[in-house]
Amino acid sequence: MSGCERIMADIESLKQITDGRGTTRVGFTETYRKGSDCFRKSMEQAGLKVREDSIGNLYGLLEGEDKDAPVILSGSHLDTVINAGAYDGIAGAVCALEAARMIKDNGVKLRHSYEVIATNEEEGTGFRQSLLGSMFVTGDLTEDDTDKFRNVEGKTLKEVLPGFRAKDAVPALRSKDEVKAFLELHIEQGPVLETAGKDIGIVSSITAIAWMTVTITGFAGHAGTVPMPLRQDPMTGACRLIDTISAHTLENYANTAVLTVGRFGLEPGSSNTIPAKCVFTIDLRSEQMEIVQILIDYIRKTAAEVAEKFKLEIDVNLESLRDPISMDLGLRGLIRQSCDELGYSSHEMFSGAGHDAMIFAKQWPTAMIFIPCYRGISHSPDEYVEPEAIIKGAKVLYETILKVDKQ
Amino acid sequence: MSGCERIMADIESLKQITDGRGTTRVGFTETYRKGSDCFRKSMEQAGLKVREDSIGNLYGLLEGEDKDAPVILSGSHLDTVINAGAYDGIAGAVCALEAARMIKDNGVKLRHSYEVIATNEEEGTGFRQSLLGSMFVTGDLTEDDTDKFRNVEGKTLKEVLPGFRAKDAVPALRSKDEVKAFLELHIEQGPVLETAGKDIGIVSSITAIAWMTVTITGFAGHAGTVPMPLRQDPMTGACRLIDTISAHTLENYANTAVLTVGRFGLEPGSSNTIPAKCVFTIDLRSEQMEIVQILIDYIRKTAAEVAEKFKLEIDVNLESLRDPISMDLGLRGLIRQSCDELGYSSHEMFSGAGHDAMIFAKQWPTAMIFIPCYRGISHSPDEYVEPEAIIKGAKVLYETILKVDKQ
Repeated sequence: MSGCERIMADIESLKQITDGRGTTRVGFTETYRKGSDCFRKSMEQAGLKVREDSIGNLYGLLEGEDKDAPVILSGSHLDTVINAGAYDGIAGAVCALEAARMIKDNGVKLRHSYEVIATNEEEGTGFRQSLLGSMFVTGDLTEDDTDKFRNVEGKTLKEVLPGFRAKDAVPALRSKDEVKAFLELHIEQGPVLETAGKDIGIVSSITAIAWMTVTITGFAGHAGTVPMPLRQDPMTGACRLIDTISAHTLENYANTAVLTVGRFGLEPGSSNTIPAKCVFTIDLRSEQMEIVQILIDYIRKTAAEVAEKFKLEIDVNLESLRDPISMDLGLRGLIRQSCDELGYSSHEMFSGAGHDAMIFAKQWPTAMIFIPCYRGISHSPDEYVEPEAIIKGAKVLYETILKVDKQ
Repeated sequence: MSGCERIMADIESLKQITDGRGTTRVGFTETYRKGSDCFRKSMEQAGLKVREDSIGNLYGLLEGEDKDAPVILSGSHLDTVINAGAYDGIAGAVCALEAARMIKDNGVKLRHSYEVIATNEEEGTGFRQSLLGSMFVTGDLTEDDTDKFRNVEGKTLKEVLPGFRAKDAVPALRSKDEVKAFLELHIEQGPVLETAGKDIGIVSSITAIAWMTVTITGFAGHAGTVPMPLRQDPMTGACRLIDTISAHTLENYANTAVLTVGRFGLEPGSSNTIPAKCVFTIDLRSEQMEIVQILIDYIRKTAAEVAEKFKLEIDVNLESLRDPISMDLGLRGLIRQSCDELGYSSHEMFSGAGHDAMIFAKQWPTAMIFIPCYRGISHSPDEYVEPEAIIKGAKVLYETILKVDKQ
């Protein structure tokens, strides 16, 4: 089998292990166990030494010449959201395995050991905490936290773990000096690479995120009996506010920030009643925290202006604010060099989505390799990646691993 | 008891006959029957000859000298929405009764008979057809239609009627030549009179109404991974469209039209997902059908511009379009004259809400007398009308009846 065939066979096998619509393989479920066992088998067939940690993250080790040297780690997650596609996370785990197979096939002797990792519960669909698996690896979460998370059935992670955990599970926690570098290949989940016609995305950083809830309070009334000049209509205020901040972000920060209103509710929500209240969310992301701060200020200022003009009360509540996380400059350079040598076009870009890499970046030099996906569709059975794009990603990953090994 | 005391006692008695929160007295229910019986008793005590028709509309007759002459009819509805106030509809029925008491007290001999009417199911809360009671009076609905309407329990009006109907019920249908004029006093349900500091509103017409549903289709995506210039975000398009058409209506038709977006839904409705679709309603009203048509065209034109600019599909569907209904010019003049004579300020205005008057206006000269209500609040237990405002309305109604009788 060619590398491409092997990768596609692995992806196809995992795609079939689903629990409902599309690919649905939620962390800590029986279906997840089947997926994990399937990937374990592929790693064992490739000659890797497999072990599983206490939280269900799976490792496949290819020993290097210097067993005391820190490992080069690569992979991504095996769990999915509900009704997902076959590539999100999976492509990164499978390409990390393919890199191991290439190392063996090519008779390369690495000084550092190389390790494949397939993380559990990155999506947070099972226990409503994204990046859960990797957070146990870095110690952001520990065994003491397992009673804090509940699944849809109301069971805590603590209750579910004994039935899920492998008998020979090793501790999840890994120290700072155990890993030389972490490389995560992932599908882009956006349309940037496809639109730009680029083979490979090199992630500069994972964006800062601000989550806001805006509540606008007006005064309800009959749609027919209250003249417009006498209204305090929160819907008209909301539309002016959203239109103004969206247009401003698009005009001034087209390539550096994104602003999204994805949830919006009107009360009482009757077609012939002027609403009394509306509540909506703002999701704001940028590589630069400074831009996020400038835009939060702009939103607040615009909200105050709209409140005055439309005689409304507007509350802008900043629910959470996360710092951006930079990818390692040195590793980014090695990825670019690999692309150049392979003759693949590359594109430096930020990741607006969160990934295991943002957890690992806190303690290990970390970088991400993005591959294009069809129309940027993800978290859907329509998610699609060209086999050609995946094998290019695997080759860049392989070449980068060789370069990291030499450093 | 003074006239004011009698009116307030009638309103207070009816307010207590409720079926849950606020005043809730839905048509064709046991609670409605109790309310109807209470009003029957008040009419009988006033010396009126009471009868009920086959659909539950209640009449109280004060015979005139010429029994062959058409009657002067006045009243409004006794049913309420759920969690309503004590004045909507009720004030008009009670003031019509008070006018009868004033005629008797003052020893006035009318040539025409004067009849009080209290209609059933004007709100349409029971069988989801507003103005149902009055539509049986004009023949817009007949006994054959009773199996078309179902209540929340799934029972048809045909099934419910036998248990509700009075034993001595008379036919509901009344001919064109039976009624000389219909006068309906009603609370304004809007803030115009209160804001203008006027005692009485004289309704020029009940507005034309256009109901539209707008569906905007874009392309879903991750809130973090799709740059704004590459988005097809229906939310940004919806806000631009609603802001533009609302501002245009307010600027150009502040006193002649009202536009309301009262229902709005986003799909999938997740805070970190660019929506795929949004659907909202537009309620558009004006006294002039020409303005409604101009605004429908403006909405369609703006939707097309927004669709192009934001790369969206926008469908504007006109669900229904109702003609405006003019109130009788002669009767309006008599109401104004009555106001002037009584020293009450009056204000010509349109009614954006529907009333029984719009059904009766099709076959009888019809006019409406509005009285101010606190902040325009209606369909709420917070609905409030000053006793002083009600008695002024009753006096204007009384004086107008005398004038109509002389014509």
